[in-house]
Amino acid sequence: MANLEHRLDLTFAALADPTRRAIVARLCSGDATVGELAVPFEIGLPTLLKHIRVLERGGLVSSEKSGRVRMCSLTPGALLNTDEWIRSHIATWEGRLDRLEAHLARRKKDATKK
Amino acid sequence: MANLEHRLDLTFAALADPTRRAIVARLCSGDATVGELAVPFEIGLPTLLKHIRVLERGGLVSSEKSGRVRMCSLTPGALLNTDEWIRSHIATWEGRLDRLEAHLARRKKDATKK
Repeated sequence: MANLEHRLDLTFAALADPTRRAIVARLCSGDATVGELAVPFEIGLPTLLKHIRVLERGGLVSSEKSGRVRMCSLTPGALLNTDEWIRSHIATWEGRLDRLEAHLARRKKDATKK
Repeated sequence: MANLEHRLDLTFAALADPTRRAIVARLCSGDATVGELAVPFEIGLPTLLKHIRVLERGGLVSSEKSGRVRMCSLTPGALLNTDEWIRSHIATWEGRLDRLEAHLARRKKDATKK
């Protein structure tokens, strides 16, 4: 459980940056080399590589070097874990609203009986 | 768009901490005072208040002081925004896998015809 919490820390931290989110968005459409990823961003290659390392630590991206080219892929498990965390809490919150609504409806019904 | 990106930065950063995620989880079940939120955590009130400020900046929590008591509530919009971002990208990734699967099935079919 502590391990999952730590992984969620790293995944959420990795997603807290617009360049890193754009890299994830790009890799959702297919694998890309570091050079290809660099094209739309006005940042140097060392900065881009730092972002990729943060995404790797967050479990969102994996990369492999083949000769002079580093190929990056999405590893969707971390994205699915954050989605599960968020959705389960939204469900708790919605459940509470549903119960509150049912409670108010019962009170209204009781009041009209009197 | 830049504004939404900035809000996503702050929301994801706010969620990148286990204590802050536990506060969000608690508030999904109902409003709570700062004193009530402090009970399960072995941290001082000033540290807890700092976490609440980060959650407020991330749009996840709102708080209001009434006399000597500060009441905290979940503001679900930010949670829904992060959920939307994650789900739309998972959908892109799944769509790519579906297309890849369809392409491989077509190739297999063509190969068996020959």
